[in-house]
Amino acid sequence: MMTMMKRCAVFGASGGIGAALTALLAAREDVQAVHALSRSGGAGHGKVVAHRFDLLEESSISAACEAIGTPLDLVIVATGRLVRENGEGPEKSWRALDAGAMAELYAINTIGPALIARHTLPLLPKDRPAVFAAISARVGSISDNRLGGWHSYRSSKAALNMLVRNLAVELARTHPQAVAVTLHPGTVDTPLSRPFQRGVPAEKLFTTERSARHLLDVIDGLTTAQSGRLIAWDGAEIPF
Amino acid sequence: MMTMMKRCAVFGASGGIGAALTALLAAREDVQAVHALSRSGGAGHGKVVAHRFDLLEESSISAACEAIGTPLDLVIVATGRLVRENGEGPEKSWRALDAGAMAELYAINTIGPALIARHTLPLLPKDRPAVFAAISARVGSISDNRLGGWHSYRSSKAALNMLVRNLAVELARTHPQAVAVTLHPGTVDTPLSRPFQRGVPAEKLFTTERSARHLLDVIDGLTTAQSGRLIAWDGAEIPF
Ligand SMILES: NC(=O)c1ccc[n+]([C@@H]2O[C@H](COP(=O)([O-])OP(=O)(O)OC[C@H]3O[C@@H](n4cnc5c(N)ncnc54)[C@H](OP(=O)(O)O)[C@@H]3O)[C@@H](O)[C@H]2O)c1
Ligand SMILES: NC(=O)c1ccc[n+]([C@@H]2O[C@H](COP(=O)([O-])OP(=O)(O)OC[C@H]3O[C@@H](n4cnc5c(N)ncnc54)[C@H](OP(=O)(O)O)[C@@H]3O)[C@@H](O)[C@H]2O)c1
Repeated sequence: MMTMMKRCAVFGASGGIGAALTALLAAREDVQAVHALSRSGGAGHGKVVAHRFDLLEESSISAACEAIGTPLDLVIVATGRLVRENGEGPEKSWRALDAGAMAELYAINTIGPALIARHTLPLLPKDRPAVFAAISARVGSISDNRLGGWHSYRSSKAALNMLVRNLAVELARTHPQAVAVTLHPGTVDTPLSRPFQRGVPAEKLFTTERSARHLLDVIDGLTTAQSGRLIAWDGAEIPF
Repeated sequence: MMTMMKRCAVFGASGGIGAALTALLAAREDVQAVHALSRSGGAGHGKVVAHRFDLLEESSISAACEAIGTPLDLVIVATGRLVRENGEGPEKSWRALDAGAMAELYAINTIGPALIARHTLPLLPKDRPAVFAAISARVGSISDNRLGGWHSYRSSKAALNMLVRNLAVELARTHPQAVAVTLHPGTVDTPLSRPFQRGVPAEKLFTTERSARHLLDVIDGLTTAQSGRLIAWDGAEIPF
């Protein structure tokens, strides 16, 4: 799908995976512009155009999308949170369930990406391929869950998977060449995973560059038949 | 599993399905007491013991559970919301996505049941069968979603399915005979479904009594192998 890809947007461009995706996209010949969106805004350079946004402030998302203006061939949502802003979590058992923690993770991992969809889908072209990809997680698969724990994170990602499934169903009616998917990036060495890397064998802990390369390969190969699915870094579909 | 069942709790006993479940349980010979929990509290009668609680007020849930005190063989969460308290929703397309609507439905359909679990699981006996059942919905199945729409509701139920899966995994370690499931009650004639019943063939629109009967049959037949699953009124497992 990437051969026709020209303009991209990465939400969460300050994150481990988001920054690597931004850099790899900017280095591609078939990419004209990468809109890099983050809370700090940051500086643009070369093909990279920087924008500020906060998932918790919808007006900042709509303002950034207005600034982007042009059609987007690829939107990647690379934001996310595993622990609370105050450092608490993730839950180890149902005894730790907390209404505030759940609401906070749903706001970041589920509602935020929904708002991004709300404001970027109008920018997708109807007459050529386009991709909306939100980074989810294998632990967001309900049927794959054999360990328990991480209640807020897991359920926020399951909800995200449902939302993107909805987008896929609805986009198919208006954008016959568009694809909406959720992606599992592997276990990646980023601030998000750092406290939880013990026990992960070295060869299974990806650098951000490696994960981003895999994810772009997956996006390159996407077909409309895969729209609405949860797909891992190696292209394998993960059942919900 | 019901042969050993003695004490039950129904959260949402004022709802269509919850009231029918409460009445059927109270009529059973193998049931000693039914704790009927609702926002209004209501009046007890016979085996039915009424309690007040609000999903949005955790202290009311813990207080009610303290009042229940005794072990619970069956906990049913029959609360839920499809439209907002102000009557808005459910969403017909991604264009209607709204942060406030999503947060409201997550609070009721996902966080609320999690808080009920937090305070009722300590009441489940460890040495005999026990069931924690939360009413979810077929439209909360991601893989079954071919129509789109109802974003907040669908995703809140997918998140609920994940949470109950987590409970099942964790309970298995401490309560070898306990089962945690989500249930699909069918399309049932209640205030929740009333605005959306057009197009539902009469024979597919259950009375609350019929749905409750089916659900109790399913609960009667549950095995620990089914813990963590989403099960329909007819006993069929619904894939996530
Ligand atoms: N790392 C892994 O092993 C792993 C595994 C599975 C899935 N994932 C998923 O991969 C995605 C990327 O995570 P990562 O590992 O790259 O983590 P990360 O380095 O911590 O990046 C998280 C990103 O989310 C952004 N973010 C958080 N709250 C925000 C808000 N309110 N508004 C705007 N942006 C916000 C952060 O922005 P700031 O820089 O401003 O904080 C940052 O750009 C997440 O969805 C995560 O769940 C990661
Ligand atoms: N009806 C269907 O066709 C259908 C289909 C699939 C799934 N379901 C699910 O079945 C379950 C029961 O729904 P129903 O059809 O019986 O709907 P209902 O008659 O509208 O009952 C909803 C119940 O939820 C309670 N509730 C709402 N907000 C609450 C809060 N903040 N605190 C405490 N309780 C609260 C209501 O209490 P109040 O009386 O105080 O408002 C009421 O008892 C829901 O989970 C629903 O999603 C229903």
